Amino acid sequence: MFATPEEAEEAYYDAFRRRDVDAMMSVWLDDDSIVCIHPMGERLRGVHAIRASWRQIFGSGHALGIRHGDVWRNQGPLLAVHVAHEYLTPPQGEAALVAVTNVFQLADGGWRMLLHHASPMDAGSAPSSPGGALH
Amino acid sequence: MFATPEEAEEAYYDAFRRRDVDAMMSVWLDDDSIVCIHPMGERLRGVHAIRASWRQIFGSGHALGIRHGDVWRNQGPLLAVHVAHEYLTPPQGEAALVAVTNVFQLADGGWRMLLHHASPMDAGSAPSSPGGALH
Repeated sequence: MFATPEEAEEAYYDAFRRRDVDAMMSVWLDDDSIVCIHPMGERLRGVHAIRASWRQIFGSGHALGIRHGDVWRNQGPLLAVHVAHEYLTPPQGEAALVAVTNVFQLADGGWRMLLHHASPMDAGSAPSSPGGALH
Repeated sequence: MFATPEEAEEAYYDAFRRRDVDAMMSVWLDDDSIVCIHPMGERLRGVHAIRASWRQIFGSGHALGIRHGDVWRNQGPLLAVHVAHEYLTPPQGEAALVAVTNVFQLADGGWRMLLHHASPMDAGSAPSSPGGALH
């Protein structure tokens, strides 16, 4: 159980770094209305499709580093909308800056992820020093 | 005033087609917490920055066609989260399929836009017949 949207978000990125599908899915609502959009990807809906996508990403054998930060928050009583940056570092090649919207929902006394929408940003629109605000 | 998130969303796409900056901004909350991410773009926050981006887009001289549809809805009492497709048709060149998250907030008795996050989709991940569900 996550007492705040921030706790759920931290668990999300922790699961990503550990490439742990079960930990990742424990962050999401157990509901067919959940939606995930990976960078450049199609919309995925529901526990089954989203779990399969994480299994594929984590199972690809590429250890993808991720930092998340510079969060803009809009918090309601039942939904919290976070818009932030992700800084993805592949084992080889260029790091990528990603704009991300994470939406969390309060359900059964805890906060869980309802939506993850991640999208690449043109290098030209990237902050000059993304590392500063990210962690 | 928009009685439902759907009315606000319809007004958003109507303003886009008419390239009307004032009509577009009347759909958004008059609040510095609003956030807009155009495809491949940096996060923009607040009325001033978002208005300036629309002025630039609508003033570019390119009449960009847009269809919006295939909407997945998650409606709370104060926030509504819509995830949908946009199909953008430039005057020349390829049409583009975009994944979009629109978040609406109930404020002062009406629904207004809080967040617009649009991102390109790989051609490989596009539905085979995007026209069907879009309008």
